Formats: sequence, structure tokens, C-alpha cells
Amino acid sequence: MNELTTIGYSYAEDSAAPVIGANATVRSGTIIYDDVVIGDRFSTGHYALVRERTEIGDDVLVGTRTVIDGETTIGSSVSLQTGGYVPSGTAVGDNVFVGPHAVLTNDPYPIRRETELTGPTLEDHVSIGAAATVLPDVTVGTGSFVAAGAVVVDDVPPDTLATGVPAENRSLPESLRTRNDI
Amino acid sequence: MNELTTIGYSYAEDSAAPVIGANATVRSGTIIYDDVVIGDRFSTGHYALVRERTEIGDDVLVGTRTVIDGETTIGSSVSLQTGGYVPSGTAVGDNVFVGPHAVLTNDPYPIRRETELTGPTLEDHVSIGAAATVLPDVTVGTGSFVAAGAVVVDDVPPDTLATGVPAENRSLPESLRTRNDI
Amino acid sequence: MNELTTIGYSYAEDSAAPVIGANATVRSGTIIYDDVVIGDRFSTGHYALVRERTEIGDDVLVGTRTVIDGETTIGSSVSLQTGGYVPSGTAVGDNVFVGPHAVLTNDPYPIRRETELTGPTLEDHVSIGAAATVLPDVTVGTGSFVAAGAVVVDDVPPDTLATGVPAENRSLPESLRTRNDI
Repeated sequence: MNELTTIGYSYAEDSAAPVIGANATVRSGTIIYDDVVIGDRFSTGHYALVRERTEIGDDVLVGTRTVIDGETTIGSSVSLQTGGYVPSGTAVGDNVFVGPHAVLTNDPYPIRRETELTGPTLEDHVSIGAAATVLPDVTVGTGSFVAAGAVVVDDVPPDTLATGVPAENRSLPESLRTRNDI
Repeated sequence: MNELTTIGYSYAEDSAAPVIGANATVRSGTIIYDDVVIGDRFSTGHYALVRERTEIGDDVLVGTRTVIDGETTIGSSVSLQTGGYVPSGTAVGDNVFVGPHAVLTNDPYPIRRETELTGPTLEDHVSIGAAATVLPDVTVGTGSFVAAGAVVVDDVPPDTLATGVPAENRSLPESLRTRNDI
Repeated sequence: MNELTTIGYSYAEDSAAPVIGANATVRSGTIIYDDVVIGDRFSTGHYALVRERTEIGDDVLVGTRTVIDGETTIGSSVSLQTGGYVPSGTAVGDNVFVGPHAVLTNDPYPIRRETELTGPTLEDHVSIGAAATVLPDVTVGTGSFVAAGAVVVDDVPPDTLATGVPAENRSLPESLRTRNDI
């Protein structure tokens, strides 16, 4: 832990200190709220933010200035690259890769309609390309690949390649039908 | 105010301390320059930046690592979500929502031609979706909605839905013809 | 140098302090790793990050919360605007402009295939628009212009305008056939 990190940001009077497993590397500027539980071998870049009521598995990287906005579950062997955004109410499986500047969202009609805030579900072995945007409540199926810059508005079935704005689902090339090894 | 915030970043010898209204919540890492005037019930996430000569109304949220680059006017009841960018010379009305990672711009021909830097105008009750980009000097009319990931190159009339790259203006669905309640 | 900057982030036992030329302005929150060499008149915004083994010429601006992820070469008279991302293995020439929130990438098949991480090459006098994304190993030729929000998947020849998702190469308008004056 670096002296300029904040581990245990108290956001409520009765909040509890976060729990972080063995062999963590938390780089300077990172803020981790109370009521966060993280597994072993956790690492972050600089100025990462993990808000309250988030559960994170083992072997997870949260990149520089990536934000996890709380009330989210993240599996094991997950890599969230630089500058990504994970809103509250998101579910991320195991062996998931989220590229730099990718944005997940949870509010389909911001401010206009009352809706529950539900982020996307990224199943196991999903890869999200750089600067991609995934709309609220979308499920990206196991092994699927979202291309860089895609805007995903509909569910992506397993083992599918989603590309474009709005994203279209295509057959995943044979060469990408492997599993993520993070 | 958190002890790790910087309220009153002195950028010139004769700059004046910022004025912030009652009941502000400024989270750690945030930097507010001199010559900024902000209304009541202001709140920020972490690592927000508000540069000089910016006026902000009441009940405004500036999200985590959102940047307001100075010389900008922002109304009341405005929500700027995580990681947005507001360049200098931007005008934002009342009851405006700007989604996570949205980018407003002010330089149409960067470096190539001499031009005045004029940001967009977002009129009252505008919503800008996540990761949308709005080009310089564009006006988004009252009540309009810019979809996630859209790149807005032309003016958007009032009560219009702008989607795609480049964005096309469509009729706003009846269900979104409400006003923003922030 | 501001007291809240970190100049010389030690990332390895045998790393060497960075070298920064004359008349630098490094704003608060910025982190510069060891084994970085920077020319004269360097300036940064807040919370910029320059990682190890990066060479930077004279008259370079690294904007607020822009990340240079190391092992990268950047020429002289380069402006990297707010919130950009430059991955390791990138080559940037002289007189290059990179707009706010632009993302360069270096991993074509993240996690799926073993590949060398090679970022883009931006030749001299290139301008990259706001929120554009440039895929790995792409070369953007001298004097070319990538439009805001474009996703560049193929090489861009010199003096070309690349627009859209995926980006198409078009003739550069006469009015933009000037050189960048940074």
C-alpha cells in the first residue's frame, strides 16, 4: 500500500473497513471505500476508485483511473484496463477483460423515467474492446468479444463478436474461439 | 471539504478565491481553481477539476474525474456524471444531465486553423448519453436527448433524439417527452 | 513542480531518476516514473501519468488525467489533451495533436492470442480528434486528420481525413492541408 492511497473511505456512520486479501499492490492515489471485500493478489494502477458494497475475487487488476461505482460483483482473474467505468449494479464473471476507456452504463433513460439502475452482466471469458460502450441491463454471453468502439445496445449471445454503432452480432472468428487467460 | 481537496488553486497573481455556497460536499482529490463561483448544495466525486472563471448554479454534481476546463457557465440542477469533459467556452442550462465519459469539444480544426474556441450550448432539460461526443459550437435544444455513443456534429433542435455516428436527428419518442427532474 | 506531484516513481530496484529539461510546469497530482527523459518546456495538467522508459521531446503538453503507459517515444511540439490514453509501444512524431479522451491501443486480441503489444505510429503533423480510437499497430501518415469519434482500424495514408466507425479514408479538404503549429 502506498501512503497516498485511501483504504477505507468512510461513507456512512456504520460502515465497516474493507477487507483485502494477501499480496495486494495498491498504487498511489487509489481510493477504496468501506464495505468492500477483495480477494488475493489484487492490484491497481494510480487513482483507481472502488466504491462501497463491492465484491471482488482473486487476481483482479483495476487500472489507472478506473472507477467501480459500488454495489457491484466482480469475479476472479479479471482485468479492468485504464480509465474504464463500471457503474453500480454491474455483474462481472471470471476471466473477463475490459479494455481501456470502456464504459458500462446503468441508466437507460437518464432523469426522464423512473427505472431501477441495472448495469450490464458480463459472463465468464468476455472481452470488451477499448472505448466500447455497453448499455444498461445488457448481457454479454460467455466467451463473447465486443470490438473497440462498439456501442452495445442488445444482448450478445455466447461466442459472438459484436461490432459497430449500434453493435451488430456476428459469428466469432475461429481464431478467437479460445478462452481468456488472465 | 476533505483535507485532500484543493479549494482555490491560484493560477494567476491577481486571482481571487473561489466562492462556494452552503452545504457543499467536495470529495477528496478534487481541485477548484480561483475565480470560480458556485451555488448551494454543490457536490463532487473524487478527483474532479473545476478550472478558473467558471460559474455554476445550485444543486450541481460534478462526478469523479470530471473536468470543467474553465470560462464556462453551468446552470442549476445539473448532473455531470463520472469522467466527463467540459471544455472552456461551454454553456450549460438548467436541469441538464451529462452521462459518464461524455466529451464536449471546442476546437473544430485543432491546430490547423485559427478559430475561436467555442464549446457546445446545452439548453435546459437536455440529456447527453454516456460516451457521447458533441462537436464545437453545436447547440442541443431544450429537452433533447443525445444517445449513448453518438457523435453530434450538427445542431439538435428542441425535443429531438440524436443517435449514431455522425448523429442523425430523429423524433423524440413520446415516453421521453418529459422534463429532467434532477 | 507542485508539492503534490510525484517525480521519480520508483518501479524497480535499479531504476534511475527521471530527467526533465528546463522550464517545466508539472501540475499537482501528476506522477512521473523513473527512467523517463523529457525535454524543455514540458507542461502537464493535473493527475497526468507518465510511466517508465518513455522519451519525450521539447514543448510537450500532457493534459489533465492523460496517461502515457510507458516504453513510448514522443517527439517535440506535441499536445496530448485532457483524458487521453497512450499505451506502451506507441510512437508519436513531432507537431502532433491528440484531442481529449482519444484512446490509442496496443492489444489486437486482448487475452485471446499471444501477440506483441505494439501501439500506433502517429507521424509528424498528425491530428487525432476528440474521443477517437486508434487500433494497435496502425500508422497514421504525415499531416493526416482523424475525425472526432472515429475508430481507426486500418492505416491512414499521409494527408488523409479518416472519419466514422470503422473509419474510412477520404481526401483531406484543401483548407486542412496545412501543418500543425503547436
